[in-house]
Amino acid sequence: MKLAVIGLGLIGGSLAKDLRDRKFTSFITGFDANSNNATEALNLGIVDEIKPLAEAVSNADVILVTIPVNAIDKVLPLVLEHVNPTSVVIDFGSTKESICNTVRKHPNRKQYVAAHPIAGTENSGPSAAINQLFDGKTCIICEKELSSEEAITTAEKLFQTLTMNLIYMDAKEHDIHLAFISHLPHAISFAMVNTVLEAERDFKNLFNIAGSGFASLTRLAKSSPDMWTPIFRQNSENVINAINAYISELELFKQLVKKKDSTLLHQMMERSNEVKKISPPAKK
Amino acid sequence: MKLAVIGLGLIGGSLAKDLRDRKFTSFITGFDANSNNATEALNLGIVDEIKPLAEAVSNADVILVTIPVNAIDKVLPLVLEHVNPTSVVIDFGSTKESICNTVRKHPNRKQYVAAHPIAGTENSGPSAAINQLFDGKTCIICEKELSSEEAITTAEKLFQTLTMNLIYMDAKEHDIHLAFISHLPHAISFAMVNTVLEAERDFKNLFNIAGSGFASLTRLAKSSPDMWTPIFRQNSENVINAINAYISELELFKQLVKKKDSTLLHQMMERSNEVKKISPPAKK
Repeated sequence: MKLAVIGLGLIGGSLAKDLRDRKFTSFITGFDANSNNATEALNLGIVDEIKPLAEAVSNADVILVTIPVNAIDKVLPLVLEHVNPTSVVIDFGSTKESICNTVRKHPNRKQYVAAHPIAGTENSGPSAAINQLFDGKTCIICEKELSSEEAITTAEKLFQTLTMNLIYMDAKEHDIHLAFISHLPHAISFAMVNTVLEAERDFKNLFNIAGSGFASLTRLAKSSPDMWTPIFRQNSENVINAINAYISELELFKQLVKKKDSTLLHQMMERSNEVKKISPPAKK
Repeated sequence: MKLAVIGLGLIGGSLAKDLRDRKFTSFITGFDANSNNATEALNLGIVDEIKPLAEAVSNADVILVTIPVNAIDKVLPLVLEHVNPTSVVIDFGSTKESICNTVRKHPNRKQYVAAHPIAGTENSGPSAAINQLFDGKTCIICEKELSSEEAITTAEKLFQTLTMNLIYMDAKEHDIHLAFISHLPHAISFAMVNTVLEAERDFKNLFNIAGSGFASLTRLAKSSPDMWTPIFRQNSENVINAINAYISELELFKQLVKKKDSTLLHQMMERSNEVKKISPPAKK
């Protein structure tokens, strides 16, 4: 199986590593709009060759589109234009509604599978690519009914190779849930870091007294602005709803702190403790 | 050196383990208001004996007070009452101003050292105690000038045994910084979990699509309400200031998302990326 990876960052590079090691593919063509990234991925052995977009696409059996979501909106129609009749295109964007709408009427829509693997780290670029990034994680596939059976079968085989668990969902529904589960946590972390950097601007010991709690809350604020700016833009309505719900909760918490209401504060934190049941242990 | 540990949870238990292993002490007396905790700590070999408070204190050379901060306010004066003239008392509370004020005029104030080790996990109870919890971390000592030279020397020896780095600070200043660096992150995490649990109440797949980003942001929400209720109460004014500053930042972020202002969103996240320079990698 010949693979093309469009976008050679953390996700594209990590996919290439595992799919090659596990014999899903024996030859990988890469494309990256940033020629430094392309060269780096080639030097790291992540891809076997670098080709222009159209050529990379037309020579591959499976094309993975692993670029920021605004770029997917632009590039995915071009990819579908150049794709062979038996090839399959899969995108890995963190938003799905806008992307699915963009290609809904495309003549080759059936060859495309809309996917979102719930996996990543705060690092970016080809050198951030790691093995086993996807192992045992969940991948959401949207609008399955608009993909051909063959395309879904190929995509499922790819995700099985990565030992991912599949969930099927409507694109609109996907974006609402992800606003709360992923985009809100990122907004929270970005805003928290800026608050603390501003408030503690003149405090030289900030580095020394920042413990593991601070580190947990600020990890996501190390994420790539290039990736996250278009996610917040594309999912703005749902993200705003999530931030509003969150600010209401925080205001309530603040009122209880102000009133020194031990009983309700305790109850509120007990309710939060419920997360022990649903959240996996934090990863680095 | 005979040690007494008042409060046999995560902090008290972890201190006991390392201080025994590293020969700082050869005999440890424990006390816990919760008799189940006391029995568990004894069974786990964390302490050599369990004694009533006054007896535990009067038989020890060094007394560690490792209980929630509201309990420290009540118990520390009693501990100082029963302490031998040559013994040293150290508390490990996460707030310092209220505690320091409580014992400022105590006749035995000189025998007391006000400390706050920046170390912990979200787990609690004697079974959560682990070795090397404090290694290489920072410990803040407040109002050093009110402790005797001998008391400070003993405390410094203890923290050197734990390989901690010491920082000296005014108690009021401590509480202001900790509001931003530690108490705000906890408030943020508690509020976030409650927001998501409420919004996603009927979403069965919540567990499956919650990735490592969600896990990072929610780890602190697993923390003990018994420990955190009094911290928020004691440091309410500083915590409210921190939450207000944070909500302003979040409102600004929301406005940029609303306006889909890519330039300013990108800039805001670039500024957050600065945290790469100051924050250590997240711990599990």
